[in-house]
Amino acid sequence: MPSPLDRVRIVLCAPSHPGNIGASARALQTMGLSRLVLVNPQRFPHADAAALASAATGVLEAAKVVSSLDAALEGVALAIGFTARERQFAGAVLPVREAAREALRYAGSGDVALVFGAEMSGLSNDEIARCQIIATIPAAPDARSLNLAAAVQVAAYELRVAAQGDRVWSAPAFEPATQESIAELFAHGERTLVALDFFRPSQPRRLLPRLRRLFARARLEKEEVNILRGILARIDERLERLEQTEK
Amino acid sequence: MPSPLDRVRIVLCAPSHPGNIGASARALQTMGLSRLVLVNPQRFPHADAAALASAATGVLEAAKVVSSLDAALEGVALAIGFTARERQFAGAVLPVREAAREALRYAGSGDVALVFGAEMSGLSNDEIARCQIIATIPAAPDARSLNLAAAVQVAAYELRVAAQGDRVWSAPAFEPATQESIAELFAHGERTLVALDFFRPSQPRRLLPRLRRLFARARLEKEEVNILRGILARIDERLERLEQTEK
Repeated sequence: MPSPLDRVRIVLCAPSHPGNIGASARALQTMGLSRLVLVNPQRFPHADAAALASAATGVLEAAKVVSSLDAALEGVALAIGFTARERQFAGAVLPVREAAREALRYAGSGDVALVFGAEMSGLSNDEIARCQIIATIPAAPDARSLNLAAAVQVAAYELRVAAQGDRVWSAPAFEPATQESIAELFAHGERTLVALDFFRPSQPRRLLPRLRRLFARARLEKEEVNILRGILARIDERLERLEQTEK
Repeated sequence: MPSPLDRVRIVLCAPSHPGNIGASARALQTMGLSRLVLVNPQRFPHADAAALASAATGVLEAAKVVSSLDAALEGVALAIGFTARERQFAGAVLPVREAAREALRYAGSGDVALVFGAEMSGLSNDEIARCQIIATIPAAPDARSLNLAAAVQVAAYELRVAAQGDRVWSAPAFEPATQESIAELFAHGERTLVALDFFRPSQPRRLLPRLRRLFARARLEKEEVNILRGILARIDERLERLEQTEK
C-alpha cells in the first residue's frame, strides 16, 4: 500500500559535510522515507556519506543530485523550509510537529518537500521565498542550532508519528494471574508474616494495605504468583523446622 | 528558575564511536539539557567527540565518566531504557513521546535517567532490568535502528517539547525509592533466597530476572523498600536461629 510518506522528499541545500548526507539518508530510512534530494552538495558521493548511511544504502544511492532549489522542488505542491531563527517570512511559521501534520495532509494528494539549508548559513532569504511554510524545531532559548542531520532526524520522526496516527502500543503479553490466585497469595503472605512475627493481627498498622497496593500496581502474572507462593512455602517449612528444634 | 530538565541525565552505555558522544552532547545542549553520563566509553576524550559537539563544549566537558550502569543511575528515581526492538519486559513500554512526559513528571521531585545502549548491541537484558520503563522510538517496520546520537536527539527533543508544554508537574503521591536502595534490596533478596535454598547461583534459571521485572513494573516506593527489607531481615534472623539450633 502506498504511504503518504512516499510523496515527501527531503531537500538538502548545498550540504558541506558528506557525513550529514549519509546520516540524513539513515534518518529517512529508519522513518520509512525514501526520497532524498541534494542541491549542489560540496562533496558527493563520498566515503563519509556511505559510512554514516550505514544500512540505508538504498536511500543514499537513490538520492537525486540537482543544481538548483527550483529543480529540487519540481512537481511539489507544498514546500516547508526549516529555519533555526525567526525569519522575515509572510507565511505560516509552525513548530515541526504541526508542520509534519500539514505535510502529511498535503501528501494525500500531491508531492511535499521539506527543505533544509547549508550547515553554516541555513536557508537564504531567496530559498525561503520558495517555501509556503516555515518550520522551526523547539530548542533552548540560548542554544545553538541543531546539527543538519539531527534536524532531518527530528523532522523525519515527526512525519513518521504523524503518518502512524494514534497507534496503540502494547506491552508483551504474559499470562495475568487470576483474582482468586492473587487473593490466595495475599492470604498465604499474611499467614507467613504472622508466623514470622513480622505482622500482628492485633496491631495491623498499614502493612498489609501497603503490600497489597504494591502488588496491585505490578499487576501480577500467573508465573510470578507461583514464584511468590513457592518462596512463602519455603519460609513456612523453615519456620516449622525451627519450631520443632526449639521445642 | 530551575527547569525539570536539569534533573534529567542522559546515560550512554559503552558508546564505541566518540563522534556519537559529541553529537549527543550537541543534541542535549540545543534542547536545554546538560547532564551527560558515559558508562565505559571505548574512546573518550577524543577529537571526534569535540568536533561533533560543536558549540556544546560545556556539556561535553561536564560529561561524567563512570564504570558501571549502577554508578550512572546513582540517586535516580526513574530510569527509562531505550530499545529498538520488542524486548522481554513486562513493565510499561511507551513510545518516546509518552516516556518523555513521564520523565518530566518524575523530574518534578527526583532525578531521572534516559539510558541508551551501545551502537551495535543496544541495551543488554541486564541493563534493561535496571530500568522501570522501556521507551521506543517509532520507526518504519522494516527499518534498521536509529543511529545512537539520532536517538538521543529525538529523545532530547521530546523532553524539550514536554517541558515547554502547558502542563503542571505533579510529583508522585509517594516518595519513589532510589536506584541504590532498589539495588540493595535485590542484593539482599538474592542472599536470603540463597539462604532459604530457594535459589542456587549455580542453577540460576530465570528466577531473579523475573522478580526484578515484577518490582520494576511496580516502581517501588521508599517505604515499600523499607518494608521488604524488614521482612527479609526477619527471615534472615529466623534462618540464623535455625542454623544455631540445628548445630
